[in-house]
Amino acid sequence: MCRFLAWTGAPRYLDAFVLNGDRSLIVQSRGALIGKTPLNADGFGLAWYGERETPCIYKDVNPAWSDANLEQISRHTRSGHFLAHVRASTSMATSRNNCHPFSLGRWSFMHNGQVGGHLRLRQDLDGMIPADCYAHRFGATDSEAIFLIAAGYGLDRDPIGAMMQAVGDVESLSRAKGDTPHMRFAACWSDGRTLYAARYASDRFPPACSIKSVLTASSCALNRWMAAPLRGPRSRPAQRSKWRAKLSDGIAFSQ
Amino acid sequence: MCRFLAWTGAPRYLDAFVLNGDRSLIVQSRGALIGKTPLNADGFGLAWYGERETPCIYKDVNPAWSDANLEQISRHTRSGHFLAHVRASTSMATSRNNCHPFSLGRWSFMHNGQVGGHLRLRQDLDGMIPADCYAHRFGATDSEAIFLIAAGYGLDRDPIGAMMQAVGDVESLSRAKGDTPHMRFAACWSDGRTLYAARYASDRFPPACSIKSVLTASSCALNRWMAAPLRGPRSRPAQRSKWRAKLSDGIAFSQ
Amino acid sequence: MCRFLAWTGAPRYLDAFVLNGDRSLIVQSRGALIGKTPLNADGFGLAWYGERETPCIYKDVNPAWSDANLEQISRHTRSGHFLAHVRASTSMATSRNNCHPFSLGRWSFMHNGQVGGHLRLRQDLDGMIPADCYAHRFGATDSEAIFLIAAGYGLDRDPIGAMMQAVGDVESLSRAKGDTPHMRFAACWSDGRTLYAARYASDRFPPACSIKSVLTASSCALNRWMAAPLRGPRSRPAQRSKWRAKLSDGIAFSQ
Amino acid sequence: MCRFLAWTGAPRYLDAFVLNGDRSLIVQSRGALIGKTPLNADGFGLAWYGERETPCIYKDVNPAWSDANLEQISRHTRSGHFLAHVRASTSMATSRNNCHPFSLGRWSFMHNGQVGGHLRLRQDLDGMIPADCYAHRFGATDSEAIFLIAAGYGLDRDPIGAMMQAVGDVESLSRAKGDTPHMRFAACWSDGRTLYAARYASDRFPPACSIKSVLTASSCALNRWMAAPLRGPRSRPAQRSKWRAKLSDGIAFSQ
Repeated sequence: MCRFLAWTGAPRYLDAFVLNGDRSLIVQSRGALIGKTPLNADGFGLAWYGERETPCIYKDVNPAWSDANLEQISRHTRSGHFLAHVRASTSMATSRNNCHPFSLGRWSFMHNGQVGGHLRLRQDLDGMIPADCYAHRFGATDSEAIFLIAAGYGLDRDPIGAMMQAVGDVESLSRAKGDTPHMRFAACWSDGRTLYAARYASDRFPPACSIKSVLTASSCALNRWMAAPLRGPRSRPAQRSKWRAKLSDGIAFSQ
Repeated sequence: MCRFLAWTGAPRYLDAFVLNGDRSLIVQSRGALIGKTPLNADGFGLAWYGERETPCIYKDVNPAWSDANLEQISRHTRSGHFLAHVRASTSMATSRNNCHPFSLGRWSFMHNGQVGGHLRLRQDLDGMIPADCYAHRFGATDSEAIFLIAAGYGLDRDPIGAMMQAVGDVESLSRAKGDTPHMRFAACWSDGRTLYAARYASDRFPPACSIKSVLTASSCALNRWMAAPLRGPRSRPAQRSKWRAKLSDGIAFSQ
Repeated sequence: MCRFLAWTGAPRYLDAFVLNGDRSLIVQSRGALIGKTPLNADGFGLAWYGERETPCIYKDVNPAWSDANLEQISRHTRSGHFLAHVRASTSMATSRNNCHPFSLGRWSFMHNGQVGGHLRLRQDLDGMIPADCYAHRFGATDSEAIFLIAAGYGLDRDPIGAMMQAVGDVESLSRAKGDTPHMRFAACWSDGRTLYAARYASDRFPPACSIKSVLTASSCALNRWMAAPLRGPRSRPAQRSKWRAKLSDGIAFSQ
Repeated sequence: MCRFLAWTGAPRYLDAFVLNGDRSLIVQSRGALIGKTPLNADGFGLAWYGERETPCIYKDVNPAWSDANLEQISRHTRSGHFLAHVRASTSMATSRNNCHPFSLGRWSFMHNGQVGGHLRLRQDLDGMIPADCYAHRFGATDSEAIFLIAAGYGLDRDPIGAMMQAVGDVESLSRAKGDTPHMRFAACWSDGRTLYAARYASDRFPPACSIKSVLTASSCALNRWMAAPLRGPRSRPAQRSKWRAKLSDGIAFSQ
């Protein structure tokens, strides 16, 4: 289980979220108070949007607290739209290719969760990635696979529906060949204009998504926040409306 | 195209081959005189056999010449059986998981060559890896895929035949969906007792394997060397005997 | 001997200089055509100025061509004032702390050159750094020492005179205890408003500084360029006027 | 405050101490139960002695738990004499040159402790290193400085006395210009034949050195252990005899 945060709103320097404050990403990397993995030191990553359509991805395998470049970039980069992630590896190696956020064209994606029995499912999961997206399969995580499967379903056309289908497909695979919990999923993804966030679990324990645990109300204005609890493949139609909620201005944080 | 060397014989300190001399691995990493890629600085790796049945793998993404640990380990490790490799990345990222040698149980493997159209074949290649070997698919190179496919054919039972079948399968895939040259292959692999080496090409240009280009005759005694020129799938039976030759005492080098 | 380039002028994306073209920094890192060290793969660094007074420093120990973050940052960062450097280590280790550019407050500095007998002078050189600058002595290069000594002389007050004094002091140390060539020096330094460049040698072989070797005249407009050949401590007064020339709009490159 | 352990005795594979057990070095790197810094993830290092007179040093900046090479080397290296260290950086950067153990000729050294006001003392400390040892000053830690000063006093001639003098000199510097606590010191050093260990503090709180906190009595036989509490410069003569105790067979661990 990792930690992530995202910002969409007025342009802010990244250091406000990444370096400063007692709930910054740096603090989260060293010692999160809540969660199974207090330590999130198996790499980190940033995706921010500026003048170009594609995001700028900066990620590396060091612990966030000891990366001197991360400190520099956070202090000098201002963006109205960014994602930030610290990783706690559950199985696959500490490698830049396994760090979040992942990107494809103008899309970026970061994830916190698990797919039950992932190690047994890896080859099937790789086979589910659409052929024309496989050139972007650089690492070996379930997270990147979900993102690329969603890209195949058409994130541009239906950003939330495509992600729902991808999550549903991977959950089905885990039900068929994997282990419980089949799917625990909290994620943020963005095309640089709209930030999408969702949480979902195949059981009753989705990863937490809470705005209050990041910054005090006084330090940032939150307009809208949506943590959409999908309840499994069969309940998709009913839940779909909830997924459609967007984070058009706010800050997302997931435990 | 990478560079590699291997040793089987009386126990030697690795520095004799890795650090010292004007044709050492360090020299090869900085500026090989022959070949399309004079620079082999996208990572390096060692596999050596000691008292345990499995090899010790030391590999990293730095250029070999600037890795202080490589210098230390080479000076202090003595082995009668080792493989050493410097990488020039042709397509996949500079990542430890993409560095040679690869290992599985007691087997180690390193490779220099190319599979025509690899980027288009990646997903099919991943699908060809036997399911029970996929847990060892850590990176994204064609080299690692060939090794794992060969492992599936049974390296223990038929070390050379299994490798031939794997190379043949991947060449067939390249013929069906890839590009020329379909297969250029020079490799060393070992179970810690016998060192196997082979060269092969689907066209007339297999990567060179020459002993004389590494060390002078006076500095190491070479007993046997085999560079087996397979000439394509149809000629396999005739060539098979050549593959069976072993490097039981000598030093292998491949351009 | 390293390679560097700098830009001051209309805001440009860094990739124009770092990634693209046949004389980009990436190309220089792999194989410079001229110079004793065709390979400049012992780390790289960028300093760019944006809205804040201090520069943003991004540097790391990988070869520039294999750093995926460098590619990302170069594609997405636009600046009217930046420095870029690829390092060929002559003696001190490949370490981020030894990579250029160095920075102190709003100043950044990068260097290509040598101080004869540096290894014998290291402790004396460290002792010459002003006490109040020593907190910024992170690495072990002669380059960083020259920069910190110059900072002690007052870069804010006299950017060129302070650098001249520092270079003169270190040359004197090399004359007293070191070896020939006592000083070969090409450098760029900046406070984010004005870019200063200089070349100097205690013998007749200062490192080259040439604009034409970087980009063709058609691809960038050069207004002013100064390569000031100081000829030794005694000739300083006469040469001082040349040092005062500034690069207020142009691109600097040093072999 | 770091964590370290050392072994002298019958040759053992390093994994017994580095990887396995609930008090292994890996466990210590992730979450030590006692101490101000539960996290020791700013690099790690090993020094082991084999057939050569000098130690083999393997160290790097990754957290110990995520370094795949460390796992490999620990599983395959057997030694009757080794030092192992995980670092929690207090001030100086995460850099290989700042990782322990340090080495000079046949000597290796690792340290856990602090010198009050080190950041203010750095230049004076560098000036105290004997000129003929300065070529081995690669990093910027107080630990490496103490080792090199001790080397200057003659570790070969008087391994304990030389270390006492170095520790005393640095404590005096901290008393003159630094801050409290002037010296907290726990260290192991070795020439490959005898392992020396000491603990000392200028106040009443030397870093703990306890054998029982590492391995149960049943898993390793401890013959002798010495934690020598020096009480300050004036008490040196009286304490000297305690420092002379040696760890000729046992395992040393410091909190």
